[in-house]
Amino acid sequence: MIYSKIRLHQFTQDVFIKCGMPASDAALAADVLLSADLRGIDSHGVARLSGYVRLYEAGRANMDAHHKVIHQTPSTATIDADSGLGLVVAPKAMELAIEKAKQVGTGWVAIQNSNHFGIAAYHAVKALPHDMIGISMTNASPLVAPTYSKERMLGTNPICIAFPSGQELPFVIDMATSNAANGKLEIAQRLNKELPNGWVQTKDGSPSINANELKNGGALLPLGGHKGYGLGAAVDILSAVLSGANYGPWVPPFVAFLNPLENLPGNGIGHFLGAMRIDAFRPAADFKLHMDNWITRFKQAQRIDPNQEIFIPGEIEFNTNKDRELNGIPLHEVVEKDLQELAQKLGLNL
Amino acid sequence: MIYSKIRLHQFTQDVFIKCGMPASDAALAADVLLSADLRGIDSHGVARLSGYVRLYEAGRANMDAHHKVIHQTPSTATIDADSGLGLVVAPKAMELAIEKAKQVGTGWVAIQNSNHFGIAAYHAVKALPHDMIGISMTNASPLVAPTYSKERMLGTNPICIAFPSGQELPFVIDMATSNAANGKLEIAQRLNKELPNGWVQTKDGSPSINANELKNGGALLPLGGHKGYGLGAAVDILSAVLSGANYGPWVPPFVAFLNPLENLPGNGIGHFLGAMRIDAFRPAADFKLHMDNWITRFKQAQRIDPNQEIFIPGEIEFNTNKDRELNGIPLHEVVEKDLQELAQKLGLNL
Repeated sequence: MIYSKIRLHQFTQDVFIKCGMPASDAALAADVLLSADLRGIDSHGVARLSGYVRLYEAGRANMDAHHKVIHQTPSTATIDADSGLGLVVAPKAMELAIEKAKQVGTGWVAIQNSNHFGIAAYHAVKALPHDMIGISMTNASPLVAPTYSKERMLGTNPICIAFPSGQELPFVIDMATSNAANGKLEIAQRLNKELPNGWVQTKDGSPSINANELKNGGALLPLGGHKGYGLGAAVDILSAVLSGANYGPWVPPFVAFLNPLENLPGNGIGHFLGAMRIDAFRPAADFKLHMDNWITRFKQAQRIDPNQEIFIPGEIEFNTNKDRELNGIPLHEVVEKDLQELAQKLGLNL
Repeated sequence: MIYSKIRLHQFTQDVFIKCGMPASDAALAADVLLSADLRGIDSHGVARLSGYVRLYEAGRANMDAHHKVIHQTPSTATIDADSGLGLVVAPKAMELAIEKAKQVGTGWVAIQNSNHFGIAAYHAVKALPHDMIGISMTNASPLVAPTYSKERMLGTNPICIAFPSGQELPFVIDMATSNAANGKLEIAQRLNKELPNGWVQTKDGSPSINANELKNGGALLPLGGHKGYGLGAAVDILSAVLSGANYGPWVPPFVAFLNPLENLPGNGIGHFLGAMRIDAFRPAADFKLHMDNWITRFKQAQRIDPNQEIFIPGEIEFNTNKDRELNGIPLHEVVEKDLQELAQKLGLNL
């Protein structure tokens, strides 16, 4: 079933308003969720809406949150998100990073006491119209085992870096630091398919291709082995040890049916955002000219299969976005049913 | 054969002086090279010394370089390295980043017109005594093929992030964005061993386990597939498109027997360095306490094999460093012979 962006946006906004969120915050949160559906990151869009509502119902998300800057310097700030949704505070924090970059060249904001912020790309991409490089990352519920360990210690801890270009599409890398994000496992589960090697291990740490392995106590594996463990750990430290949020195995689970651990070392989950003004390094026009040259040259890299083009990071998502803005967003029947139940519960129309 | 750090340091310094480098710069360059040997990154230490000399002999490295800040803001700078060695300019640029971080919270320096800067970790780790997070990255000679391509378009483009801790060892991740750095292939070649799957492909883009595949026109593969391609590309753009250096396939090769391409889009190779003051986000003492807690908890993560401990990024290198400071640096006979030839040519004693 295909839904228009406008219809899903309105519904998402209405759901958040029903949960007590101010209308302008609800519009922002809906923007962030819909950007995932538009870009084809279906696991991070409206498919998660009922999850956010359950977090609210469990008393773990503050829908009328008022974030506070608790520390700052000319190029940095630390924000307490007041237990709100990252969907709301992260775009506002990104504006602060951009403002600081305007003043002193770069701006960096660490956020504590937050909840999940949707796709990392939404936040980083906000820097592009300002001729800035955008950076965003977050920690997340522990699902990934460090090298040599069978314990879930890290989230899929995504990192996004977005670079402006001239005539070409912008370069946007948005990647989990695990070999596969949980959303890819869910897709394999729905299709009843086996996983590629290297995505998961069993609860004893043996290799597995079972898409349901996490339910058996297994773990996701870090990107490319120990390097991905280090990279995911660095995202955890920047997002949480630096901001005062929870880190590693203490990150509160996104799913409301699991309780946070006791004696937490920090507040909520953490994000880390940055903006760097291009012309703090070289004239923006020069940079964009060379970005276009970079992109053109990489598109022309010799192909292994003449029919398989080389992609620039972000290109596939950008094209999906263009298509879905125009032709609507296809929802899987499981997601549609979930939204219909939500509509019924809250007295709304999908 | 085991050499003391002091002996190799003196020799390295003498070699650079013989090439016309001022003594203080030569001491610095020797420091950086030796830090690789001490940390066990043998491919990036004195094993490369004759390579730097050949770059000088080919007229591609300026041993009496005077770098210039060509652009700056309170939190950023761009440096022209005057065709000098990254070994010399990068530590100086890192000092500038640290100085800017002292003033406005963070400091970021992009460097163009440089040559290779040794191990990334040397530069990032300089931030630690200042209670700062250190970041360093560089682009490098094209050896890595983008996803779906058989052409060498990117270097192994390493990235290092170093975090200070309290009682524990610092957390230092220093990783190539390819599955394996070229140094690991050289080790396999010397031992006449096959490579693990996923490290290289043939010149036609087929999977290969041949340690000599690069000599046949093959390519290294990006870390974990398309994510590593995106990550290595982001390092390339930050290091070179932002600084005005050469990028992608235009990066001048480190080996002097290969000439740079014609019509280069930039100057030399590029680096990108950063320093973030911890107390620009939260009190340094709090951060270090939580870093110690992070490290202690991850060391205690449940093991798959009870006899195989979990490592913190940087731990193995730190322990090797401690051992080699005390007991000396073992040199492979190929490296020893190379240094002896260099000594003879320049009228020095190894």
